[in-house]
Amino acid sequence: MSTSERSQVRRLPDRAAYDTETIHAILDAAPVGHVGFVADGRPIVIPMLFGRDGDDIYLHGSVASRLQRSMAKSLDVCLTVTLVDGLVLARSAFHHSMNYRSAVLFGRAEAVEGEEKLRALRAISEHLIAGRWDEVREPTPIELRQTAVAKLVVEEASAKARSGDPVDDEEDLALAVWAGVLPCATAWGVPQPDALLPAGTAPSPSIEARRTHP
Amino acid sequence: MSTSERSQVRRLPDRAAYDTETIHAILDAAPVGHVGFVADGRPIVIPMLFGRDGDDIYLHGSVASRLQRSMAKSLDVCLTVTLVDGLVLARSAFHHSMNYRSAVLFGRAEAVEGEEKLRALRAISEHLIAGRWDEVREPTPIELRQTAVAKLVVEEASAKARSGDPVDDEEDLALAVWAGVLPCATAWGVPQPDALLPAGTAPSPSIEARRTHP
Repeated sequence: MSTSERSQVRRLPDRAAYDTETIHAILDAAPVGHVGFVADGRPIVIPMLFGRDGDDIYLHGSVASRLQRSMAKSLDVCLTVTLVDGLVLARSAFHHSMNYRSAVLFGRAEAVEGEEKLRALRAISEHLIAGRWDEVREPTPIELRQTAVAKLVVEEASAKARSGDPVDDEEDLALAVWAGVLPCATAWGVPQPDALLPAGTAPSPSIEARRTHP
Repeated sequence: MSTSERSQVRRLPDRAAYDTETIHAILDAAPVGHVGFVADGRPIVIPMLFGRDGDDIYLHGSVASRLQRSMAKSLDVCLTVTLVDGLVLARSAFHHSMNYRSAVLFGRAEAVEGEEKLRALRAISEHLIAGRWDEVREPTPIELRQTAVAKLVVEEASAKARSGDPVDDEEDLALAVWAGVLPCATAWGVPQPDALLPAGTAPSPSIEARRTHP
C-alpha cells in the first residue's frame, strides 16, 4: 500500500505505521468499521460490517447499495477502524489521552457481483465470527441478489497507535493524584438463545471460539 | 434537530430515531467518535475524542487543528458514533446481523476560542471519565493555546439501533444449529499505575466510578 501526503499522519508522527501486516491486524480485530464518502459535496460516515480475504477488503451494506442505485462504477471512500485499549489518566488535564490502535484506508468502493460476491460475504461473515459460515445455511441465489457488497480498492493506508503510561510534565509528578492507564477491551457475554431455539441446543463451536478469543 | 433527505435512514427505517434524547444517550455512552470531512473532494474519517455540554458538542484534535491551519471559518463534518451490543447469529448466513446503537450528526465544525475552550475541554474530559477534571491540574494558558477544539454546530441528526433475536426464515427454524445473540460490551480492566506513581497511591474516585458504570 502506498502512502502520500493525504495519509501521512501529521500529528504525532511517531505513532504511525504503514506496513500491511500492522494495518491488517487492526482491521481483523475490529468488529465494525466506519466508512466515509462524499454526497453532494458533504461528508457522510456510516458504521459498516466488513471483511478481509488476503489483500481484498469487502464492505457490506449501504455504501454498496448506494453504488448499485447510482449505477456509478466506483465511489471514493475512507474506511477507518479504531480499537480503544484504555484511558490514559495523567496528573494534568492536558496530558490525558487514549491508548488505541486505528487504521485509515483510502480508496475506491466498487460493486462486487457473481462468484466474488459469495467469497466476499464469506469473508465478512468470517470477520464477524470465524467458523460460523460453515455451521449455517449458505445464501440462496435470491438472497445473494438482495445483498449489496463492495470491494475497497485501497490506494493508501496508514495505522496509528498509542500505548503505555501517561507522559506528565516533571513539575506535576509530585501531585497527589493517581495516574496511569485504565485498560478496556470488548467483553463477550453469555450467549442468549433465540426464543424459537429448541431447548438443549448447545452454542456451536464458532461461538465458544469467539467468546474466548477476543 | 431537524431531519432531511440526507439524514433520513433509507435502509430498514423502522430502526431509526430522531429525538435529541436518544441521540445524546448514544453519544454519551461512546468513548470515541468517527469524524468525516472532505479534503480535495475526497472523504477522510478520523477517530476523535469528543464531549457534550447540554446541546453543545465539542470535538478534540485534528479537525480543529485543520480548521486552525486553514484559517477557514467552518468545515462540513459528520460525527458518527457506534456502540456494538452483540452479534446476531441466525440459522442462515443471510440473516446474520449486529445489535448496535449508532448516531450520525451532520453539521459544521467551528474553531472554539477563549472562555468557551475551557468549557469545551472540560466537557471532553468529563465525557472520557466523569469527575476526573476536578482531580487533576487544570490547563495553563499555554496548554490552552496548544489545544485545538471545534464545536459541532449540528444541522441534522439521527440515531439507528437494532436489538433482539435474529429473524430467521420459517423454513430454517428446524435446522440443528444454535441461534441467538452473543452480547458484547466494553469491559474496564484493573487500573495500571504509572511507573512514576508513588507506591500506595489509590485510584481516584473518578476511576472507580468509570470502572463500575460502563
